[in-house]
Amino acid sequence: MLATALPLPLTATRPAWLAVALADLDAVHQDHLHCERKAAQSALSLVRSYPDRAELVLAVARLAHEETAHVVQVSQLLGRRGVDATLDHGDEYAAALRELCRRREPERLLDRLLVFALIEARSAERLALLAGAIPDPATAALYKALAAAEVRHRDTFLELAEQAAPATWRERLAELARAEAAIVDALPVRPRIH
Amino acid sequence: MLATALPLPLTATRPAWLAVALADLDAVHQDHLHCERKAAQSALSLVRSYPDRAELVLAVARLAHEETAHVVQVSQLLGRRGVDATLDHGDEYAAALRELCRRREPERLLDRLLVFALIEARSAERLALLAGAIPDPATAALYKALAAAEVRHRDTFLELAEQAAPATWRERLAELARAEAAIVDALPVRPRIH
Repeated sequence: MLATALPLPLTATRPAWLAVALADLDAVHQDHLHCERKAAQSALSLVRSYPDRAELVLAVARLAHEETAHVVQVSQLLGRRGVDATLDHGDEYAAALRELCRRREPERLLDRLLVFALIEARSAERLALLAGAIPDPATAALYKALAAAEVRHRDTFLELAEQAAPATWRERLAELARAEAAIVDALPVRPRIH
Repeated sequence: MLATALPLPLTATRPAWLAVALADLDAVHQDHLHCERKAAQSALSLVRSYPDRAELVLAVARLAHEETAHVVQVSQLLGRRGVDATLDHGDEYAAALRELCRRREPERLLDRLLVFALIEARSAERLALLAGAIPDPATAALYKALAAAEVRHRDTFLELAEQAAPATWRERLAELARAEAAIVDALPVRPRIH
């Protein structure tokens, strides 16, 4: 486990979010399918950008392997509920975080890893909230398992960030975590993961 | 197995390719890492475009799950050989095939599925050639297994194409397979998968 004093995410999701999410779980699952897809794609984008970092490639390819299994699981969940998936609505949350990534290397790598860690942390928090509140036991169990996976993924990204920038990663994480909290706070409350 | 009279790929790779590939296996493995990554990304791109096709989403998410495992395996192979992966050189082969995809739906879906099937078919052929010629038994065994996986993926895409356009997929496949053969024939012989 990583020696970071910061709790991640830094702030708790507003209680109103859980009520809105529970009132339209189908919309949450539809959004969640794309979140898992985009998590896999983000991990693979790091393989594309940093192929010569063998340890990073292995870690994020394994992470993408898990995320693709989650795409299967969420698709099956939608099937059991008799609900079609929908097109991705886009994700202002992730887009705002990506905007914070510096353009020049090696800062860019550090920022991408930390932003992915923050997205995983927020996802884990919200999936755990859902797991604790969804009435259907099978769905709740699935969300509990997915939340645990996201916590592991958060820590994978934090470990990679520490390896990439041992002297500066903590300070930059604190900055970006504060920014993430502000971004979440500014978003409308919707039946989506973010 | 799919009732297609066509052998896929339609043409055999020129013998010169195998000699060039064996003379620089490191370059082949470096290229192969990105091929597996892009195969996973292509599969996920279909989830993004056609989320409401539940059967397709499940099939291609499972395929991406396998391809991400292959990224791990090829990265480990490079590690055993003490070779760093390199940046992607780009892929004129896949780009030329993508150019053939019609822009309007539902033709676009059919064409993307068939192009992905053709890429898998060519990859399977070449990985099998490598499997039969690479001296190191462990690497040869890996390539044999990967070639078998690509054959399964080819058939997955063909099955999805048949479901998407039962009346027209065979004829369009024949057209695109001929185009693929011409594209391969026009490419320089290089130590790459395509």
